[in-house]
Amino acid sequence: MNQPDASAIHAFLTERQDEIVSAVEARDTSGRFERQTLEGERGGLARPAVFGGGDVFDRVAVNFSHTRGADMPAAASQARPHLAGASYEAISVSVIVHPTNPYAPTSHANFRYFQAKPQKGDPVWWFGGGFDLTPYYGFEEDAVGWHRHAKAACDTLGPQAYARYKAWCDEYFYLPHREETRGVGGIFFDDLNQPDAAACEAFWRAAAQTFVPAYFEILDRRRDTTYGPRELDFQRYRRGRYVEFNLLYDRGTRFGLQAGGRTESILASMPPIAHWQYDYQPEPGSPEAELARGFLQPRDWLGIADPTLEH
Amino acid sequence: MNQPDASAIHAFLTERQDEIVSAVEARDTSGRFERQTLEGERGGLARPAVFGGGDVFDRVAVNFSHTRGADMPAAASQARPHLAGASYEAISVSVIVHPTNPYAPTSHANFRYFQAKPQKGDPVWWFGGGFDLTPYYGFEEDAVGWHRHAKAACDTLGPQAYARYKAWCDEYFYLPHREETRGVGGIFFDDLNQPDAAACEAFWRAAAQTFVPAYFEILDRRRDTTYGPRELDFQRYRRGRYVEFNLLYDRGTRFGLQAGGRTESILASMPPIAHWQYDYQPEPGSPEAELARGFLQPRDWLGIADPTLEH
Repeated sequence: MNQPDASAIHAFLTERQDEIVSAVEARDTSGRFERQTLEGERGGLARPAVFGGGDVFDRVAVNFSHTRGADMPAAASQARPHLAGASYEAISVSVIVHPTNPYAPTSHANFRYFQAKPQKGDPVWWFGGGFDLTPYYGFEEDAVGWHRHAKAACDTLGPQAYARYKAWCDEYFYLPHREETRGVGGIFFDDLNQPDAAACEAFWRAAAQTFVPAYFEILDRRRDTTYGPRELDFQRYRRGRYVEFNLLYDRGTRFGLQAGGRTESILASMPPIAHWQYDYQPEPGSPEAELARGFLQPRDWLGIADPTLEH
Repeated sequence: MNQPDASAIHAFLTERQDEIVSAVEARDTSGRFERQTLEGERGGLARPAVFGGGDVFDRVAVNFSHTRGADMPAAASQARPHLAGASYEAISVSVIVHPTNPYAPTSHANFRYFQAKPQKGDPVWWFGGGFDLTPYYGFEEDAVGWHRHAKAACDTLGPQAYARYKAWCDEYFYLPHREETRGVGGIFFDDLNQPDAAACEAFWRAAAQTFVPAYFEILDRRRDTTYGPRELDFQRYRRGRYVEFNLLYDRGTRFGLQAGGRTESILASMPPIAHWQYDYQPEPGSPEAELARGFLQPRDWLGIADPTLEH
């Protein structure tokens, strides 16, 4: 196998979308998914599925897209300038889950495959993806469980993979103006095409298949926790940080909007409600203060990662 | 007068801050301003004044700052690369008013003065500023009155000034991913140092003194309009657009955060509550639909501006 099979990847990611939609529908019958199929150029398509107004989930967006282009934009190939102008295909699923209960964390995942055929030279391909967790109230049990799942998927690629991709995730999901990570991290990887197509795809499939068990285990543990206005206020305040990250820093969001992607699909990641409160300071020693202190700095959840490792 | 007097400008902008604070306090005794004086390097200072939780105003931020630096950052001098490394002073007031009543528009203003002393060559200075209005429900009377005030201030500089600065405002406060302006505009100008210091300063002072009468006249007309949950929901939805503009595009916000400015002061412009609703479409013919159609595209409110004019 010299190059992954795009049609098999298309089918695999379609299954992942359906699996996530089913996991949501199984837990929340009060809201509903709006599903669309939007045709793109050259046989490309987008299938957004967005859920709102439920009892368990405030908002869930699970977007599948398969893009085909004749002329790769410079922005998409910054790391590979020789690909500008190449014909390409990009296949991805993006997921965001904003649960209703403030004790249940928000989660994000993205799995993507890219291949391009430059006018000169060999075709190129790579995988990217990852998942990360953003709690409003921190639980070590959740963070450790999440990272154990991440590590198990990474170990299919090699013994260094988890440490590298964990560090990359901490670095990517960072808000310098707040001196905070977005949450407790997870894994993030891109440009993956080594050692060979079969090994990359096996790892990438394992990572994508990890999301549902890893996340819904935590959700199910937290979704029925009793909460009141205090927790809801804090959740909405913290969702302002999510908005800040996505609009100020997230490359997918910024490039997607700049490239003229469908705005409503790209911004389906926004929380339904976000609050900003001037100069808010949580009470020292409170669970709200503990979040920033104990959970929003890169931390070696499994006692094994080397956070100084270069990715 | 070869160069404006920085200490007179400092005093003038301090007065503008106090004037705006008084205009808010005179209308709303239920909330309060948090005022601070923060000392900066080399005798610089920042005086944020942020109001929250009132009956008439959800949030008001009026920030005065006087920054002094020994080594001008490259980002601040993009248009003037020979100033990189120069010693400089920047004096500004930034204002944002988010009223409670959805029929009353949000308003933003900024007035700034900049001077730098490069190691080689003459000192340079310039003025910048402007004000713009963001209604949730559109009223021609408000937009026309606002632009009349703007034009009166601009006419002190010359007959072309209003048309240029009105077009610049429409261009600056534009959300390409929504194909909308942020609101009905106003004026925006920067790098102003022609024809001479006296003329520039006179215009700039006139513009800064225009803000209070121009805005509070509209506010007073709308603040007691009866409204219900429908209008409040739409206001919060539209405030999501304000967040999108400030975090995705506003240079002051993005550069301020990148340059390590005080995050809480910079993000005091955020609305207290913003909502995102997936694929929201207002009912055709409703006032909510009329906003986008009639008020969020550049429009010649006074029947005189040439929107194609280059600034």
